[in-house]
Amino acid sequence: MNKEKLLANPCSIARCLGVMGERWTFLILREAVDGTTRFAEFRDALGIASDVLTERLTNLVEHGVMVREAYRDPGHRVRYAYKLTPAGRELHVVLGALQMWGDEHLPREPGPTIERRVRATDRPVHVAFIDDRGREIDPDEVAVLRTTAHPHYLGA
Amino acid sequence: MNKEKLLANPCSIARCLGVMGERWTFLILREAVDGTTRFAEFRDALGIASDVLTERLTNLVEHGVMVREAYRDPGHRVRYAYKLTPAGRELHVVLGALQMWGDEHLPREPGPTIERRVRATDRPVHVAFIDDRGREIDPDEVAVLRTTAHPHYLGA
Repeated sequence: MNKEKLLANPCSIARCLGVMGERWTFLILREAVDGTTRFAEFRDALGIASDVLTERLTNLVEHGVMVREAYRDPGHRVRYAYKLTPAGRELHVVLGALQMWGDEHLPREPGPTIERRVRATDRPVHVAFIDDRGREIDPDEVAVLRTTAHPHYLGA
Repeated sequence: MNKEKLLANPCSIARCLGVMGERWTFLILREAVDGTTRFAEFRDALGIASDVLTERLTNLVEHGVMVREAYRDPGHRVRYAYKLTPAGRELHVVLGALQMWGDEHLPREPGPTIERRVRATDRPVHVAFIDDRGREIDPDEVAVLRTTAHPHYLGA
C-alpha cells in the first residue's frame, strides 16, 4: 500500500501511517517532542541526509503536524525552524506508548534513556487505555467494535 | 537507519521501529488485534503479497510479538495461525493511540470505522497519559527527561 492509498484508507491507523509511516518520521517526531526545532539540530541528532529530512519535514507540515517558521540569528541568513502544532503535540501519546512498550519488551542493559513526568508534580506518567470515568483499562479488556462506517461492518 | 541499527539503538522508540517500522507491520497488528489469526485471512484482509506477509509475520514471531501455531481443518493439510503474545496484545495501546489521532486529525466523511469499548461495561475508552495516581494528564503537561542511560544525558 503506497502513501496515497494509505491516506485515502477508511482506517484511521492506515491514514496515520500515510503521514508518519515512512522511515525516520517517528524519530523526527521524537526529537520534536524533545524540544528540537532547527533543521540542523534534527539533522545532527539523527544523522539523516538533508534531502530526506527536508522531505519528511515538508510532509509533516503539509499534514498539519508541524509548522515552518523563519528565523534569523544575528549576522546569519534566514533559516527555518519546525515546531509541532497542537495536533502534532498530541502525537506525544503515540510516542509514549511506543517507548513504554520498547522499554518493557525490548530492554537494553543501561535501562530506559527517557522518563516522562508531569511538569507540575514530577509524578511519573504512563500511557494506557482509560474509560470515560477515568479508570485505567487493561488492553485485554478493550473490545474493538466495527461501526457502520467500516467497509466490513458485521451488523449490530 | 536500517533495521539492525534501529534494534541496537539506545532509544526504545527506535528499537520498536526496528520490530514494527516496516511497511504493513502496523496493519498486520491491527488485524491481529481485531481477531485475525490465519495466514490467508491476513493476506485477504490486507491485499498483501504472501512473501511479504510471511516475512513480516516471521519477524513478529522472532521478536516475541506473535506465536505461530499449527492447526489442521478436517480434510486439509496442516496450516499455520499467528496469535498475539501477551506482549503483542499490549501493542493495542499503540494502535489505539494512532487510531484516535487519525480519527481526530485525519477524519473521513463516514466517520470512524472502529470504536473501542470496555468488554464488561460497554463504556468507551481512549488512550492517554495517566500519572501514578491514575489521573489523566494532558500531553503538553508531560515533560521528557533524559536518564543517565541517555547517550546525551545533560546532568541532573
